[in-house]
Amino acid sequence: MTKQLGEPIVIVGTIGFDTVITPYGKAEEVLGGSAMFSATAASMLAPVNVVSVVGEDFDCWEELARRNLDLEGVATLPGKTFRWGGQYGEDINRRDTLFTEQGVLERFDPVLPENYRKCKTVFLANVDPLIQLKVLESLEEPGFVVCDTMNFWIKNQPEPLERIISRCDVLILNDDEVRLLTGKLNLIAALEEIQARGPHTVVLKKGEHGAIMASGEELFAVPGYPLKKVVDPTGAGDTFAGGFVGYIQSQGCRSIDVLRKAVVYGSVLASFCCEDFSAERLKKLNFSQIEARVQEFRQLVRFD
Amino acid sequence: MTKQLGEPIVIVGTIGFDTVITPYGKAEEVLGGSAMFSATAASMLAPVNVVSVVGEDFDCWEELARRNLDLEGVATLPGKTFRWGGQYGEDINRRDTLFTEQGVLERFDPVLPENYRKCKTVFLANVDPLIQLKVLESLEEPGFVVCDTMNFWIKNQPEPLERIISRCDVLILNDDEVRLLTGKLNLIAALEEIQARGPHTVVLKKGEHGAIMASGEELFAVPGYPLKKVVDPTGAGDTFAGGFVGYIQSQGCRSIDVLRKAVVYGSVLASFCCEDFSAERLKKLNFSQIEARVQEFRQLVRFD
Repeated sequence: MTKQLGEPIVIVGTIGFDTVITPYGKAEEVLGGSAMFSATAASMLAPVNVVSVVGEDFDCWEELARRNLDLEGVATLPGKTFRWGGQYGEDINRRDTLFTEQGVLERFDPVLPENYRKCKTVFLANVDPLIQLKVLESLEEPGFVVCDTMNFWIKNQPEPLERIISRCDVLILNDDEVRLLTGKLNLIAALEEIQARGPHTVVLKKGEHGAIMASGEELFAVPGYPLKKVVDPTGAGDTFAGGFVGYIQSQGCRSIDVLRKAVVYGSVLASFCCEDFSAERLKKLNFSQIEARVQEFRQLVRFD
Repeated sequence: MTKQLGEPIVIVGTIGFDTVITPYGKAEEVLGGSAMFSATAASMLAPVNVVSVVGEDFDCWEELARRNLDLEGVATLPGKTFRWGGQYGEDINRRDTLFTEQGVLERFDPVLPENYRKCKTVFLANVDPLIQLKVLESLEEPGFVVCDTMNFWIKNQPEPLERIISRCDVLILNDDEVRLLTGKLNLIAALEEIQARGPHTVVLKKGEHGAIMASGEELFAVPGYPLKKVVDPTGAGDTFAGGFVGYIQSQGCRSIDVLRKAVVYGSVLASFCCEDFSAERLKKLNFSQIEARVQEFRQLVRFD
């Protein structure tokens, strides 16, 4: 059950098959990818138009369609769908990548359906910055641009990435990425430096340690939602971002109070994501379960 | 300027001279030690009776007395005061111990002045658990026992430490210590396990990532106070604990709401501690500066 309010968000990113080994088990060839996780999360709060690519072996269209996603912008190319394999150790915060098979992702040249091009809000989920840039430039009047990326692109595509950073409203990164992008070890100083490069708002995802948002002159911080058991953290960062953007879109307003609450919704959705493999927990969520955990979050941080 | 309310807290721990190298400079033979930091912090909120030991070379009595500490329980023994040296890297979260000279600490056998023995609240700051136990057993009617420790004692004195844990109301630890004590990697599950061993409340200090308190069935979490520059984190954990105990003592009540706010006071005092070497920043603090930062903290975590 979803509660989609407001205009659609365009989300571009990857859709693929993940093989994940954690101390709690193994999931083979399950749905993964930055667009899959972020769109699944965002779709609980707002309509989502997905831009991505899959190969001819992709067989999960119905599964995705049940999540109320507009999939017209997902291209099918000859070849194989993107695949990623990873293994987590006893310390669930550490993972090794076992393999990455780009497949059709290597030839992805996004073409946006006409109705997507009119959308104002876009989330550029983790994917090659050249693809993010092409999607951004395909929009007629982008009004709210949120961007995620990863270490690989910071190292290997710094120029197009910097162009996106200069044009986005919100940049969402984890602590390693913030440090790599700025060369600064102090995260608070690093957030300020990134804001100076363009984005009004920078959100730092710290996994189990929560998140910090620097927005204009304001700072907002949340601890991580306490989970006694993390089954699989794959996609939690994408889910956080999807929940963040989805909540803002559902409110039709980007005041600082909405942004603060969006960080809480992102944190809550990311916590659900970690409770099962792939988006298994997310896809079973209903809106009142999300609201109940937001309420728990309020209790968690309340004082006086 | 301090605001000491309520009955005195007995604090036992080390007083020594630290030599600290950080990316911002070097401090030689400055005041350090778990009792020094925690008592300095607690003394801003409640009266403190210190139990510790120094050598005949100790020359900072006036300096400590200016902090409104009762120092009658600080013994002077022939020999040298405890000394510790440490160096922090560019990543201020990592430090190497350069030397530890136990000095008179090796022969420390605490004897409490008569008026100390009537105190109800005791903070057993980081020191040999046999010393903590002796102090605890010297109190006529301990009513609120708060304890800190470190990896070294968890490894080398597990038996007396476990006796203290079974008798304390609040145990304060960092993440490494929680994991070492329980063998659990998941911190939330580990806190629950520690509660089952005795303490009603366990507080997990996570440095820049804040703190989590498990108290009875409730969880409370705070992010770290955002500092753009950490000059020297030495003693921040002791300062946190001192602020925590001091606030509770000042309220004369140990309700869950007081405990939650005590975590905030501990966090705020620890953040001040990091802004300069030794307790230099702490000793210049006045009560309204503490209150102002508590107010900032409220803004930092507020949503809706």
